Amino acid sequence: KNPNNNNNHWLCSIRQGIKRQDMRKVIHSVKVAIALVVVSLLYLLDPLYNQVGDNAMWAIMTVVVVFEFFAGATLSKGLNRGLGTILGGGLGCLASAFAQDLGGLASAIIIGISVFIFGAVASYLRMVPNIKKKYDYGVMIFILTFNLIVVSGMRADKIMRLARERLSTIAMGFAVCIFISFLIFPSWASDELHDSTVLNFHNLANSIQGCMEAYFNSTDEKKKNKSDASFSSCKLVLNSKSKDDSLANFAKWEPWHGKFGLNYPWHKYLQIGELLRELAATVISIKACLQSPRQVYIKSCFFLCSTLLQPLGKFFSVPSSFPHQSSQ
Amino acid sequence: KNPNNNNNHWLCSIRQGIKRQDMRKVIHSVKVAIALVVVSLLYLLDPLYNQVGDNAMWAIMTVVVVFEFFAGATLSKGLNRGLGTILGGGLGCLASAFAQDLGGLASAIIIGISVFIFGAVASYLRMVPNIKKKYDYGVMIFILTFNLIVVSGMRADKIMRLARERLSTIAMGFAVCIFISFLIFPSWASDELHDSTVLNFHNLANSIQGCMEAYFNSTDEKKKNKSDASFSSCKLVLNSKSKDDSLANFAKWEPWHGKFGLNYPWHKYLQIGELLRELAATVISIKACLQSPRQVYIKSCFFLCSTLLQPLGKFFSVPSSFPHQSSQ
Repeated sequence: KNPNNNNNHWLCSIRQGIKRQDMRKVIHSVKVAIALVVVSLLYLLDPLYNQVGDNAMWAIMTVVVVFEFFAGATLSKGLNRGLGTILGGGLGCLASAFAQDLGGLASAIIIGISVFIFGAVASYLRMVPNIKKKYDYGVMIFILTFNLIVVSGMRADKIMRLARERLSTIAMGFAVCIFISFLIFPSWASDELHDSTVLNFHNLANSIQGCMEAYFNSTDEKKKNKSDASFSSCKLVLNSKSKDDSLANFAKWEPWHGKFGLNYPWHKYLQIGELLRELAATVISIKACLQSPRQVYIKSCFFLCSTLLQPLGKFFSVPSSFPHQSSQ
Repeated sequence: KNPNNNNNHWLCSIRQGIKRQDMRKVIHSVKVAIALVVVSLLYLLDPLYNQVGDNAMWAIMTVVVVFEFFAGATLSKGLNRGLGTILGGGLGCLASAFAQDLGGLASAIIIGISVFIFGAVASYLRMVPNIKKKYDYGVMIFILTFNLIVVSGMRADKIMRLARERLSTIAMGFAVCIFISFLIFPSWASDELHDSTVLNFHNLANSIQGCMEAYFNSTDEKKKNKSDASFSSCKLVLNSKSKDDSLANFAKWEPWHGKFGLNYPWHKYLQIGELLRELAATVISIKACLQSPRQVYIKSCFFLCSTLLQPLGKFFSVPSSFPHQSSQ
């Protein structure tokens, strides 16, 4: 009865996890709403509005666009936006000043050419895999700011003032996002990555257990359904790569908190995930074995599992690679 | 020698595919640059600037944000942006008019409450899986437009005129995007989905072939390396789910072209992809078999492959489900 009890315990904790997930979504929505109300005060309170004017628009835009579910994602998107704005604005000012010196038709032609060249190069950079993964948003903001400044430069002489005001309102919006995202019920991508790796381990363990039960008592219809359910969780493990990659990407941006220090080895989670997916692949092929009439081959698959579990065991047995590993 | 020649032929075509992929990236960059120059003309040509004024900014913003690599993605993002702007603008106007009737402090409180409620509800909707998949961008633009209009409503009485002008410049930017994306060297998500499914088939076939070669001539070191390379392509198949899902999502938006009609059964590609991933899982477990000292079990795995290939064969043998299936 002990393994069954264990199983029920895990199912319960997973169900609780889903409820907690939903609760976290509600908390995130409320946090976004609070941030929006705070930046709206720039418009609604007269003393603030007299300071920033219509540039308050950019603070609202920053909150809507930058505020992400995970704290690390918010920080990385905000820094991308800031850097993109500064780089695009600086280059835009230079190009615009150069074009204005020429004046007339030549100026318009220079502006057109610079828009074309910077637009093409930056669009190409956005599709380079490494840049796409980390700086896609920053490059997009670079194109946007560069274009807006270089084309409007012909009309307004006060670019520098405009840029300073706009940057300061963007910084205000960003500060509100960071403050609310990091200090009020923060949701860390690092916790999520750790939990999802732990859940993957338990999903696989359940799948293998379900598989053995189905093999030894294949007549019991109820248990077969249960093992089908555990196989679908096995497929979840198989399709976890893109989610894990983005979580590890965000986790790198998150400061010290809980059991995770600075320079925590997030890439090892990706390696473990890779091995777990290989194991999930093996478990899925066991399922095909169970369905086949020649079940004698099942032994080979169990043997396979053990060969794959060995490197996993080695991973967790090296203490130096996981300095803050909890008892979980 | 025939299978080897076949293999080389496929490697060549894959290499050409990569080159073509790179060429397509260059073409896309040039297309984005052309679109940027075209919308910049709204600023640069005086007759046009006199018509639209500083709202030309929104046309540039639309091009930067909406222009995506695949034609279907551009269309879906543009429609999301349009719908989000209209809905957000409409509701924003209503809320703002209601608040202005009250006047004074009550007005500011009503605006704050409406910003909070709409912000929270829309942020929650963005995290519902089905909405996130298709309408995430539209809901984001809804929050943005609603907020900008409802808070600036206290200052400007001419919201309707502003909204009309802004929408017309957004429509101009969108029209430029669609025109260039659909008519100048279009890159279709539907072609990409079809090609990647075909490539997955060939990757798996190569992997199984490499596996058999490694089993029968395990002494030859060169061939072992080759089979390792084919196994890595097998892992690419295993991790193809998220890419396939988004491609199928975009493909639904693309109009009739080439061999793909309207209402083409894109979901069947996803089902085939699911089966291919199961097969890839089996092939990866064969690899573990090859590395184990008890290679007699390899026969069971080949047997597994054949049981998985049967449903795949059934898929392609039903002609009505793939009305435009080419000889490829």
